[in-house]
Amino acid sequence: LTRAELTGRLGVNRSTVAALVAELVALGAVEEERPGSTHGAGRPSLVVKPCPERVQAVAAEIGVDHVDVVLVGLGGTVLSRRRRRLATTSPPPRDVVTVVRALVGDVLDDSAAGDVVVGLGVALPGVVRESDGCVRFAPNLGWTDEPFGALLTAGLDGLPVRVGNDADLGALAEHLRGAGRGVDDLVFVAGEVGVGGGLIVDGRPLRGAGGYAGEIGHMVVRADGRPCHCGSRGCWETEIGMAAVARALGVPAGSIDDVVERLGALRRAGPDAPVPELEHLGRFIGIGVGNLVNLTNPRLVLLGGLLRQVYPFVAAAVDAGMRTTALRAPAEEVELAVPGLGGDAVLLGAAEAVWQGLLADPVAGIRTSATMGQLRRRLG
Amino acid sequence: LTRAELTGRLGVNRSTVAALVAELVALGAVEEERPGSTHGAGRPSLVVKPCPERVQAVAAEIGVDHVDVVLVGLGGTVLSRRRRRLATTSPPPRDVVTVVRALVGDVLDDSAAGDVVVGLGVALPGVVRESDGCVRFAPNLGWTDEPFGALLTAGLDGLPVRVGNDADLGALAEHLRGAGRGVDDLVFVAGEVGVGGGLIVDGRPLRGAGGYAGEIGHMVVRADGRPCHCGSRGCWETEIGMAAVARALGVPAGSIDDVVERLGALRRAGPDAPVPELEHLGRFIGIGVGNLVNLTNPRLVLLGGLLRQVYPFVAAAVDAGMRTTALRAPAEEVELAVPGLGGDAVLLGAAEAVWQGLLADPVAGIRTSATMGQLRRRLG
Repeated sequence: LTRAELTGRLGVNRSTVAALVAELVALGAVEEERPGSTHGAGRPSLVVKPCPERVQAVAAEIGVDHVDVVLVGLGGTVLSRRRRRLATTSPPPRDVVTVVRALVGDVLDDSAAGDVVVGLGVALPGVVRESDGCVRFAPNLGWTDEPFGALLTAGLDGLPVRVGNDADLGALAEHLRGAGRGVDDLVFVAGEVGVGGGLIVDGRPLRGAGGYAGEIGHMVVRADGRPCHCGSRGCWETEIGMAAVARALGVPAGSIDDVVERLGALRRAGPDAPVPELEHLGRFIGIGVGNLVNLTNPRLVLLGGLLRQVYPFVAAAVDAGMRTTALRAPAEEVELAVPGLGGDAVLLGAAEAVWQGLLADPVAGIRTSATMGQLRRRLG
Repeated sequence: LTRAELTGRLGVNRSTVAALVAELVALGAVEEERPGSTHGAGRPSLVVKPCPERVQAVAAEIGVDHVDVVLVGLGGTVLSRRRRRLATTSPPPRDVVTVVRALVGDVLDDSAAGDVVVGLGVALPGVVRESDGCVRFAPNLGWTDEPFGALLTAGLDGLPVRVGNDADLGALAEHLRGAGRGVDDLVFVAGEVGVGGGLIVDGRPLRGAGGYAGEIGHMVVRADGRPCHCGSRGCWETEIGMAAVARALGVPAGSIDDVVERLGALRRAGPDAPVPELEHLGRFIGIGVGNLVNLTNPRLVLLGGLLRQVYPFVAAAVDAGMRTTALRAPAEEVELAVPGLGGDAVLLGAAEAVWQGLLADPVAGIRTSATMGQLRRRLG
């Protein structure tokens, strides 16, 4: 935004804006530049923009068989990334903390690392209690009531930690910075091994009474269907999750790599080549999306994670399944798409959870954050 | 509330509260009384309460085979009620307007009718565009894109009309005055011939992008199940709606009266007598409720309409079905119940839609409302 726009939005005078901006520039949170082109007469107002080089957050995404960690600059730029495979699926939480700690150390050693680290945001496929990051239920990780937030806080030497559900965080990131900018009603479907959902309703995250809303993967769409590991039958996840994709493609269940590789081969064969073996899957993606459209009447449904890679092959079947299921009035208003932030939606959402704490009081937040040097020494 | 409480809540001084209350008393909106018992010393503060006798609304509920109209006093008291059977199911909207007009005339002739009528709130089982009361889709009435709001406004001689979805209005009434008082996350299931839903999320109605949210009856729970009249298959409505209840009870489909009569006979046989033929239905009620619990993590799910009469016989099966479907974390937090306002939840919600317009500016609203005499002459 220009200084002039800030003056208008904040309703304060020019000298106050100048003083506030100067304070944030000194802290390394924003920088100013002359606008590229100017229209009209007079001296152009300076553009104030977030500065990713100095104030940064770390974000982690816990997958079933891997951990991703990225260094994110203020403004949402990924500056450095590391991935590590996990030796086992269903890893114990303590082992995951060890991996996260090592990867955080790695990204802080990157040349892109700046001056201060505001915190660590962590996304995982499970039901998370927001207050303390306790993982109530993450069936694909094999965790029940694990105090993962407390373990991380202890393992990261006091770096502030926020733990959240991967789909909730993906929805947040897409709403603020991705395909859902300016869209007040959207659903983000995080289809990886399991299927989770994050909903933005009237511009705000749908949390529910205890923060557990959005468990769309365990919406029964086929009562008396296949057993789900949650104990129920015919959950949407059993019809469209990784195991269903593997089944449809005829690759061994349990191997994400094989599924991704096969989808890559299909993509190379041509984006328009029909893949009839995925039609049934596409129909069930559409049925579940149709249920969500009937229930929440969103403007946008984003298919993320593994579904982001499946969707291009089955877009017509998904659309047909959705339109059969959803009533016409809400179906007319919805658009289906893949995340604008691509595969980084969830990671950027995890970083966003950290920024949101900072934005309430950036000056105090940055001043009390750990410096890179301090954190490297602690983790070293 | 006492005058002292009003002073505290409004943050104005005592003489301002006295003047505001006096103005509302003069308009017949509120009345004052001495509190029944007094604790502590000093002169007790007067209690200010809504006065149902003078300022009133009319509410109508359009069923598949009948119309109910009630006269409601400010504060939510039903003062007079009329019901008329419709000659046909799938009645044309114009015929329904004629019936509503006649019944409104009847309740205005009741001795309980007061001084002014603020408006008419109408609830119906269908997808309604809020802006103009156009009924986009009401399959059980056989209506598609009917300008019902405009027809009502023309037929009621200018009385302000608000048209809404029955379940949305039931949810609103229960949240404000019924079992959901103080509960910020709840689902109201309106199971009559079809099944609709109204959701309150974080204290606000879940409307969706176009006001069409809550179509839970067309949530597919049994893909490849029975055909639904919406064009899909295995919708929750096909499993638990009136036809399914009739099927389970072995009474002819299509006769609401027969179903209600049979349920009455069962109730007279004893509330604890098991009704094994309803077990399967109860399980499917529970599966759908479990889906809603997974998606929105509510504190309370209210089973209204016909389901209010079915639920007592199948509470255990519903609970079991819900707990099999819902994940443990959200399942632990939810309570299932019937509406606190009983069979009047939807009607009182329709009245509430009228009050909400009034409460923004009660003095102007009451002054510009039609007097009973004016309205009787116009409708006469």
